[in-house]
Amino acid sequence: MMNVEISKERVAFLAEDFGRGFIKYCQFEADVIERGFFQSKVRIKEQHRQQDGFIHAGVIATMADHTAGYAAFTTVPEEFQILTIEFKVNFLRPAYGECVVCRSRVIREGSQIIISESEVFDVREDEEILAAKAIVTLMAVHRDKLVSRR
Amino acid sequence: MMNVEISKERVAFLAEDFGRGFIKYCQFEADVIERGFFQSKVRIKEQHRQQDGFIHAGVIATMADHTAGYAAFTTVPEEFQILTIEFKVNFLRPAYGECVVCRSRVIREGSQIIISESEVFDVREDEEILAAKAIVTLMAVHRDKLVSRR
Amino acid sequence: MMNVEISKERVAFLAEDFGRGFIKYCQFEADVIERGFFQSKVRIKEQHRQQDGFIHAGVIATMADHTAGYAAFTTVPEEFQILTIEFKVNFLRPAYGECVVCRSRVIREGSQIIISESEVFDVREDEEILAAKAIVTLMAVHRDKLVSRR
Amino acid sequence: MMNVEISKERVAFLAEDFGRGFIKYCQFEADVIERGFFQSKVRIKEQHRQQDGFIHAGVIATMADHTAGYAAFTTVPEEFQILTIEFKVNFLRPAYGECVVCRSRVIREGSQIIISESEVFDVREDEEILAAKAIVTLMAVHRDKLVSRR
Repeated sequence: MMNVEISKERVAFLAEDFGRGFIKYCQFEADVIERGFFQSKVRIKEQHRQQDGFIHAGVIATMADHTAGYAAFTTVPEEFQILTIEFKVNFLRPAYGECVVCRSRVIREGSQIIISESEVFDVREDEEILAAKAIVTLMAVHRDKLVSRR
Repeated sequence: MMNVEISKERVAFLAEDFGRGFIKYCQFEADVIERGFFQSKVRIKEQHRQQDGFIHAGVIATMADHTAGYAAFTTVPEEFQILTIEFKVNFLRPAYGECVVCRSRVIREGSQIIISESEVFDVREDEEILAAKAIVTLMAVHRDKLVSRR
Repeated sequence: MMNVEISKERVAFLAEDFGRGFIKYCQFEADVIERGFFQSKVRIKEQHRQQDGFIHAGVIATMADHTAGYAAFTTVPEEFQILTIEFKVNFLRPAYGECVVCRSRVIREGSQIIISESEVFDVREDEEILAAKAIVTLMAVHRDKLVSRR
Repeated sequence: MMNVEISKERVAFLAEDFGRGFIKYCQFEADVIERGFFQSKVRIKEQHRQQDGFIHAGVIATMADHTAGYAAFTTVPEEFQILTIEFKVNFLRPAYGECVVCRSRVIREGSQIIISESEVFDVREDEEILAAKAIVTLMAVHRDKLVSRR
């Protein structure tokens, strides 16, 4: 089920849709998109760190959640939006590198409830360290049922 | 145990220390500080929203985590720092107001492991709606054991 | 919305339905039932403990989940069943008393997704200690959509 | 670090220690033990099910927690005990088979904080289905600091 392809147009749409609003402000970018899988990255700047120079837990959590949502997005029909119901993230090791990469996989598909898992890696020179791991519970909602706030 | 006072100097230090790095970039501010309790707030701007105008889950999660950490901070001696081990956040209702307020309480004190609970409220005109709830597991670490990345 | 009453018949049904299968085997019992609230209890025996005499985390987690589900049950029409999507539980203090009480409250009602919060208390002589706290994400499913395994 | 062997005596001790108290009552058994890895299993009987014949979420959660703790146990010196700080479990698919198997892996070693991940499989005839996934935060505590309740 996971190996069904998604169209180039859909990939292009999701890549652009990924980086808007708060995510654009955080400078996260879509990187690799496949059905049931989404990878994002961010080049770390001063504003992503906390007082001791480590990358802030909020940066990592936001990336884990948002990328998980877009992994879910690759599995639903185009007229559906994805909402986060809840997520849990464990910070395994401190992150302080020049780049952070997040890889999210759908571990349970569904027409309503979708579960994704995110792994966030701290990239230091040419080494990748698993810095955090999250499980994210998402809901697919038909866009006619979502009231936009615009 | 919770009702022991903390000094004005400590309150002033925590209020300023709260808003640095990523948190400054997100424009979150310390608001009310008591022993075992921390309240923060943010005036919502375009950069806090997602594509449909709702406040991004990452804004809420970051606030829930960071404020929970500072609630823990009010309960430890000055030579200790606070790290997040993990957190879990449930998004109860969509947030879209002009301001967001987070109230965090320590529900389990400890010399090593501290548990805080955060409630994030969406402020719409003169109404406050509970938008999210988080449980945060934190660790107090002596600052001599923390290697700064500066 | 929370203060609407539920019928005596519904209360009686839920009280009995609560304690079947694994829950009966664990000897948990329904105790107080109101709309949006459910309290359960268990008298602790040797089989609820682990090797050092503390009450096993699995006893506490099972009680937190099951009671949260029945709190949700009090808020849905009779033709709906409740499933647990996920839960998270923090163990705040070791439990070793003669009785354990769980109080669960719905913190977000919904026709599909319901969120409950459970507090599990260790009862020692005439003192109650908060031993664990859980947030539980539940789903209401029409019974015609559930395939029984009987 | 993960590929260091553990002694046969240690394996035998952990296998027996695993199945005491509530876990014995639940009839869970140790199955495969390696450094950083623990597998357990249970043959499903009526008492493990809920009213509709599905295996109760509490059975799955208890197994995910307890097995995760024993995976952590394989990584610490013999004078340390393991406590669960918190866990989160997602139920991915309903379980109703004749047997349940749990595989837990340490994903972050540490002298104090250890993180394990558990996957719980529903075994139906000769098929294994991933039914639940958990992340468990554990703490290693020197046994001299633990007060037994015996």
